[in-house]
Amino acid sequence: MSQKRSLTNRKLFLDFYDKKLSEGQEVTLEGWVRTNRDNGSVGFIEFNDGSHFKNIQLVYSKENSNFEDFSHIRYGTAIEVLGNIRLTPEMKQPFEIAVKNINILGECSEDYPLQKKRHTFEFLRDIAYLRPRSNTFNAVNRVRNALAFAIHTYFQERGFIYVHTPIITANDAEGAGQVFHVIADPKKPTEFFNANACLTVSGQLHVEPFALAFRDVYTFGPTFRAENSNTNRHASEFWMIEPEIAFADLEDDMDLIESFLKFIIKYVIDKCPDEMNFFNTMIEKGVLDKLNNVLKTPFRRMTYTEGIELLQKAVKGGHKFENNDIFWGMDLQSEHERYLTEEIVKGPVFLTDYPKEIKAFYMKLNDDNKTVAACDLLVPKEGEIVGGSQREEDYDKLQAKMRELGNEEGLEWYLNLRKFGGCKHAGFGLGFDRLLMYITGMQNIRDTEPYPRTPGGLKY
Amino acid sequence: MSQKRSLTNRKLFLDFYDKKLSEGQEVTLEGWVRTNRDNGSVGFIEFNDGSHFKNIQLVYSKENSNFEDFSHIRYGTAIEVLGNIRLTPEMKQPFEIAVKNINILGECSEDYPLQKKRHTFEFLRDIAYLRPRSNTFNAVNRVRNALAFAIHTYFQERGFIYVHTPIITANDAEGAGQVFHVIADPKKPTEFFNANACLTVSGQLHVEPFALAFRDVYTFGPTFRAENSNTNRHASEFWMIEPEIAFADLEDDMDLIESFLKFIIKYVIDKCPDEMNFFNTMIEKGVLDKLNNVLKTPFRRMTYTEGIELLQKAVKGGHKFENNDIFWGMDLQSEHERYLTEEIVKGPVFLTDYPKEIKAFYMKLNDDNKTVAACDLLVPKEGEIVGGSQREEDYDKLQAKMRELGNEEGLEWYLNLRKFGGCKHAGFGLGFDRLLMYITGMQNIRDTEPYPRTPGGLKY
Repeated sequence: MSQKRSLTNRKLFLDFYDKKLSEGQEVTLEGWVRTNRDNGSVGFIEFNDGSHFKNIQLVYSKENSNFEDFSHIRYGTAIEVLGNIRLTPEMKQPFEIAVKNINILGECSEDYPLQKKRHTFEFLRDIAYLRPRSNTFNAVNRVRNALAFAIHTYFQERGFIYVHTPIITANDAEGAGQVFHVIADPKKPTEFFNANACLTVSGQLHVEPFALAFRDVYTFGPTFRAENSNTNRHASEFWMIEPEIAFADLEDDMDLIESFLKFIIKYVIDKCPDEMNFFNTMIEKGVLDKLNNVLKTPFRRMTYTEGIELLQKAVKGGHKFENNDIFWGMDLQSEHERYLTEEIVKGPVFLTDYPKEIKAFYMKLNDDNKTVAACDLLVPKEGEIVGGSQREEDYDKLQAKMRELGNEEGLEWYLNLRKFGGCKHAGFGLGFDRLLMYITGMQNIRDTEPYPRTPGGLKY
Repeated sequence: MSQKRSLTNRKLFLDFYDKKLSEGQEVTLEGWVRTNRDNGSVGFIEFNDGSHFKNIQLVYSKENSNFEDFSHIRYGTAIEVLGNIRLTPEMKQPFEIAVKNINILGECSEDYPLQKKRHTFEFLRDIAYLRPRSNTFNAVNRVRNALAFAIHTYFQERGFIYVHTPIITANDAEGAGQVFHVIADPKKPTEFFNANACLTVSGQLHVEPFALAFRDVYTFGPTFRAENSNTNRHASEFWMIEPEIAFADLEDDMDLIESFLKFIIKYVIDKCPDEMNFFNTMIEKGVLDKLNNVLKTPFRRMTYTEGIELLQKAVKGGHKFENNDIFWGMDLQSEHERYLTEEIVKGPVFLTDYPKEIKAFYMKLNDDNKTVAACDLLVPKEGEIVGGSQREEDYDKLQAKMRELGNEEGLEWYLNLRKFGGCKHAGFGLGFDRLLMYITGMQNIRDTEPYPRTPGGLKY
């Protein structure tokens, strides 16, 4: 990188931590004014160039001949500052800059919607292009970045191959959600691809062939749902992590999920201490305890059947769920999942071996012919956060299931994997944005994505 | 990760390089048979579990009571093998496995389309779900993986923030290519988003606001073109890398491009020596020399105007281009670009300051009012590989340009960045799949993507 670009806040903090920052050192910085206040003789600018979560304090005084000019620099202005480092070990910020001069690089107009006050998240959502400049979205995007790299780091260190599964596809992996259609010319909707093209809902079917070539693989990319859901947990576009491992069964899959989740959470706590302290103080008090509890607890494993029995026992014992009608075969709701993880296990728990009727077609049928080798990971304060399964490797069983569902056509290749050196394999899916909600304590998925897409939401 | 999963080829090679592999060590492996041949008394299986580019040789003999069974194991079969390490320092492969037993995990049916012979790339394209098992696509996908991680590593080490710009968008960044429409219900095409939604052609407009909050940022994700182009360099879906840096001009941008490109090429050469040797021998003879030449050469910088003059001089001197009509204002074709980089500079060269008419609306107008602060990087054997520019930071100039093009509506926020603490900033775009073609020597973009999408191409 060029030597010409100015020093960054980040570099100054790194130098400070490395004890390489010295009293009086002259620096030139470029960045933005976050606050500017003065008492008539001394002025203070909270300054940030965006490279580090923490601001740096600039101090100017009457000794600066243009004190008056400096004191009128508005919130949001881009400036270049020349000054000297002043070490302040006794203060909250460990160093500050004694200003020699400030140049205005870009004025900030008076109609700037972001003001030096608390804005609601709803308001900030409406100015999505400016909200990364606020403390909360500064922190959210930094943690988002660290979490994404944690994911790659975990898999790369373990020899997994990253596969870019396609976004445009002709098949709807789960057969579940509604899909968006992809059309070049609305007058001839299937002409371009000579097929009914849609946006992917999952990369799993496309990544399985790669697991059967490279053993351990993963996808990490955008996926889509055309559901008209306006909850705080649904977005039309979100990123998913979908690893797939060969020569592996459901137990191996759960080992992977536990190891992976602990690694990435620890990575974020280690790499983003300032941001995580911010969330712990300002967004979800105790979020760090919640996460540290996940790190230190071995994840329990319990069958769906045991789970149902425990919930029935709870109802008998007088516990009131909104839905108190607990029966084997039901799809658990969030309140049930949370009861199991929060009240029964008091920590993360895998629920395994679900009734085949409520799970996807590609999951391995267990010997009981009633359940499939699936697992959902439930965590306190959230409920289900990861879903995985061993895949059906038996050609005949899978074909029978696909014929029942009528999705064999167009997926013959997927079925064929079972007769060309097929082997046991497993994988899981984890919604990246929901994981980010869990880690940061942010309550709305719209506040974890740079530009969220939801029904009616395409302003930017 | 669980201790239960079997050893990998990768682990054995790593242990070997670390001198931790010992003669006679007992191992259990699971993987696939790549070849199986015997001379009646000794048999050899080339074995691979996909975790490493190189195969491992399994040796079985008449001492194995089921020699006959072993000798009939078909190409493509998934097996579990128990055996002992035999160090063979004098051989091409530094170790092999003396087989004690083999269990069949998954048979490979006789109609397996992949056979132990050379297949054409066209044929392999038609079995996209099996081709990663072939040597070439094994190598391509490994390099693709390493290159993707190299990109993240470069930016993360330098404090850049990774931004997931949206895939579904209401605006066509370049105003150039044809776009795909995204429609939930074909009967009411704009209902879901209450807007004309399409697939992104570039994340740049969406990432600029993040550069003006975090200084240095990048996107790396899928982008789309609905062009009906059937060349070997066009795909409907491809991944792009788009960094954006604040407080930076075109010179800083070129510094970044050069540093970035050298880093990621060196990373791939270092991390994938076996794969790169394969490409160097089997796909493009001399590709390693070509890349090493890029690494060791400082990139030249030359204005478009100088480039035109040199081309005109070449024509005068008798050089014949297919298009010999060279004039200031023209869009250079690949033959012209390649002449400049291959014949004149004999190395990578940035062409800068292009006529404003042939470049995008957001590029900074130079003082001459005729050219913009843009750069294209041209490299030998390829031509243009990266396009970058400094962005117009002047509100009035940008607004005038946008009004001229009629794209101000819906992009007011983009324009507003120029009045809310705007500053000079720059960035570039690099097509990931084309870069992979350049690095591997693969001649068709369809052979660098896991499941390429092209007009009519949506089989998988």
